[in-house]
Amino acid sequence: LKTLVVQIRDNAYPLFVGDRALPEAGVLLSSTGFSSAPIVITNETVMRIHGRALFRSLREGFGTPSRIIIGDGERFKNRATLSRIHDGMFEARADRHSWVVAFGGGVVGDIAGFAAATYMRGIRFVNVPTTLLAQVDSAIGGKVGINVPQGKNLVGAFHQPQAVLSDTTVLRSLPQREMAAGLYEVIKCAAIRSEPLLAFLENSVTGVLEHEPCALEHVVLETARIKSLIVAADEREKDIRMLLNFGHTIGHALEAATSYRRFKHGEAVAWGMVAALGVGAEAGLSEPDHCSRIVDLIHRVERLPSLNGISFDRVWSALQRDKKAYSGAVRMVLLRSIGEPEIRSDIEPSCLRRFVRRFLANGGRLG
Amino acid sequence: LKTLVVQIRDNAYPLFVGDRALPEAGVLLSSTGFSSAPIVITNETVMRIHGRALFRSLREGFGTPSRIIIGDGERFKNRATLSRIHDGMFEARADRHSWVVAFGGGVVGDIAGFAAATYMRGIRFVNVPTTLLAQVDSAIGGKVGINVPQGKNLVGAFHQPQAVLSDTTVLRSLPQREMAAGLYEVIKCAAIRSEPLLAFLENSVTGVLEHEPCALEHVVLETARIKSLIVAADEREKDIRMLLNFGHTIGHALEAATSYRRFKHGEAVAWGMVAALGVGAEAGLSEPDHCSRIVDLIHRVERLPSLNGISFDRVWSALQRDKKAYSGAVRMVLLRSIGEPEIRSDIEPSCLRRFVRRFLANGGRLG
Repeated sequence: LKTLVVQIRDNAYPLFVGDRALPEAGVLLSSTGFSSAPIVITNETVMRIHGRALFRSLREGFGTPSRIIIGDGERFKNRATLSRIHDGMFEARADRHSWVVAFGGGVVGDIAGFAAATYMRGIRFVNVPTTLLAQVDSAIGGKVGINVPQGKNLVGAFHQPQAVLSDTTVLRSLPQREMAAGLYEVIKCAAIRSEPLLAFLENSVTGVLEHEPCALEHVVLETARIKSLIVAADEREKDIRMLLNFGHTIGHALEAATSYRRFKHGEAVAWGMVAALGVGAEAGLSEPDHCSRIVDLIHRVERLPSLNGISFDRVWSALQRDKKAYSGAVRMVLLRSIGEPEIRSDIEPSCLRRFVRRFLANGGRLG
Repeated sequence: LKTLVVQIRDNAYPLFVGDRALPEAGVLLSSTGFSSAPIVITNETVMRIHGRALFRSLREGFGTPSRIIIGDGERFKNRATLSRIHDGMFEARADRHSWVVAFGGGVVGDIAGFAAATYMRGIRFVNVPTTLLAQVDSAIGGKVGINVPQGKNLVGAFHQPQAVLSDTTVLRSLPQREMAAGLYEVIKCAAIRSEPLLAFLENSVTGVLEHEPCALEHVVLETARIKSLIVAADEREKDIRMLLNFGHTIGHALEAATSYRRFKHGEAVAWGMVAALGVGAEAGLSEPDHCSRIVDLIHRVERLPSLNGISFDRVWSALQRDKKAYSGAVRMVLLRSIGEPEIRSDIEPSCLRRFVRRFLANGGRLG
C-alpha cells in the first residue's frame, strides 16, 4: 500500500493506493482521525460487488456504518438524488461531527461529496473510488456537484476529502471499456506533465489493461500525484488547473453533439486530444514526434467509438456555446511538446472551423 | 459613510455602513473590483420600497443589472426557491465571473448567498442587508443556506461576501417590531463582548428605535465589528463562535415549542438571554448587577410576546433534541459578567428542568 500526501492550501490529506485499501479501510481511517461510524453512500452495483469488503473493515474500525443507496448512472446525479441523500443523512441522525464515505465511481463521488459539503454547512467525507477514472481523476481535486437541466456539474462546490482510498483490485470488475476510458485521462495527465509516465504507458499499456498489480498501482499513484500538484497550485481553477482541460474543448463538443450517448467522457477526451494535437500541428506549435507518440498511444488502448455521422454543425455550435463562457474566443489547451501545454484563445475561427470539418470527415485521422 | 475591513482567513472585505450606502453602491463596488453588471436577488417588498435607489446606482456603475425576485418570508427559504434562483442565473447567462447582490433581509441574504456559493462551484456575492437584524447579524459571518423539512438552516455552506453595504436609512421603513428584534441581537453581542456598547445602548436605546442616524450607525458598525472579530477567530464554529449562541439554547426551544409562530427569532433570543442569565444566577456564576442591567435593557426595547400558555413539555423536549446534537448534555452559553461568556455543558438536568418550568410559570420573571 502506497501513501501520497495531498496538500491543498493549509489542509493535507492522505491518498492510499494499493490492492488492500478496502480490507484495510477501517485501520487506515482510524489513523486518519475518525472515530464514529460513517454514513456510506453508494449504488447497488458497487454494494453488491465490493460492499462486503468495505463494510466488514469499517465495522471493525468504527461499528456498523449507515448506508444510503442511490441509482447507478449519470442521470441520477441530480437535485432529486441530492435531496434523498440529505434525507437519508437526517434519518441516520448525522450531525456536524459525522462523516460520509463516497463509495463508487465519479457520479457517487461528486454527489456524495456535494451532499457532505452542504449538510449542516459542510461535514467531512472520504472518497473510495471504484473506477479507474475516479481514482485518477474525479476523486482528486475536491470538485463536487450535480447536473442540472442547463448542463453538467453546473451546481456544486469545492470540498476536499479527508482521505482517498484507491483499491486497485476493485478495478478487476470493471468492463474493459471503462478501464480504457480511465486510461485516456491518464494519458492526458502524462501528456501535459510527465514524459516518464508517458514512456511507462508506452511500455505497459497492456499490463495496465490486464490489471497487472504493480503497473496499475504505479499509474494510479503517478496520475493522482500529477493531478494533485496541479490542483494544489490552483484549487479554484483560475489558471494552471485549466491545463487539465487538454482534450476537453473538442471532447465536450463531441459529447454534446452526440447527446452524451455515443462516447464515454474519457473517449470523447481521447478524440479531443487527437484533435488538439492536430490543431497544434497545423499552427506549427506542436512537435510532430511528440504528437504521434501520444496519438499512437491513444489508439493502442482500445478502438475508440467512431466519429461517423456526427454533424459538423452540432459540434461547431457546441464549441460556440463553450466560447460564450470565456467571453469571445474558443479557448483550447494545445501542446508544444510532452509536458509543455499552453492555453490559447487566439486560434483563428476560420482555421478551427476548417480543421474540425476535415477531422470529422476523415474519421479522426490527422494530416 | 464608515468602512470596516472584515478579515476572514486570507480574505478581507469591506463593510460599508451609513445613510448613503444604497445611492453610492455603484461607486463603492466599482472600487471593490467589480466591473460587469450584477444579478440582484431580492423580494417584491424590498424592490418596491428601496429598489429604485439601488438599481439606479448599480446601473450607473455597471450597466443594467439582472434581477431575480423571490417570495417574501422564511417559508420561501427552501429548495424550490434555490432551484428557481439558479434557473434565473442560467437565464441571465451568469458565468463563473458573474456576481450576485443579495438585497433584502436575512432570508434573501442566506438563500442568495447559498445560490452564489453553489452556482458553478461558487461565484462572488455582495450583501446589501435591509433589516437591522441582517445588518448586525446574518450578513456578517458567511453562513448561508436554506431550510429543509428537518429544520432551519440545515443545508448550507460558509461563503464570505466580497462586500457588505448597510444603509441605515432603509431601516426607517421597518416595522418597530423588526427593529426591536434586531436590537436584541445587538444586546447579545454587547453582553458577550462589549460593556461600552451595552452602556451606549442604555443611553441611546430610544434614539436607535427612532432611527437617530448617528446612534444607528454606531450600533450597526460596533455590532458588526464584534461579530466579525468572533467569526474571524473561528469561521467554522468550532469553539469561540459558539459564544454567539448566548440566548439561543432556550430561545430555539421557545421558537420550536410555539411552532415558530409566536416569536420573531430575536424575541425568542431575548427571552433566551433572560433565561440564561437566570440559570447563571442560580448556579452562582453570573454577577447579579450585570444580569439586571441586561434584563432591564431587554425589557426597555419593547414589550416581548408573552410566555403564556407555552407547554413546558414541548420546550423541554426541544431542549432534549438540541442536546442530541452535542452528544449527551444540554450546552448553554452562560454569562459570568458583561463581556465574560462561558460555554457550559455541565448544567444539572434536574436543576435546568426546575428552572425552565418556573421561568414559564412566572411569565419570564426571574428570582
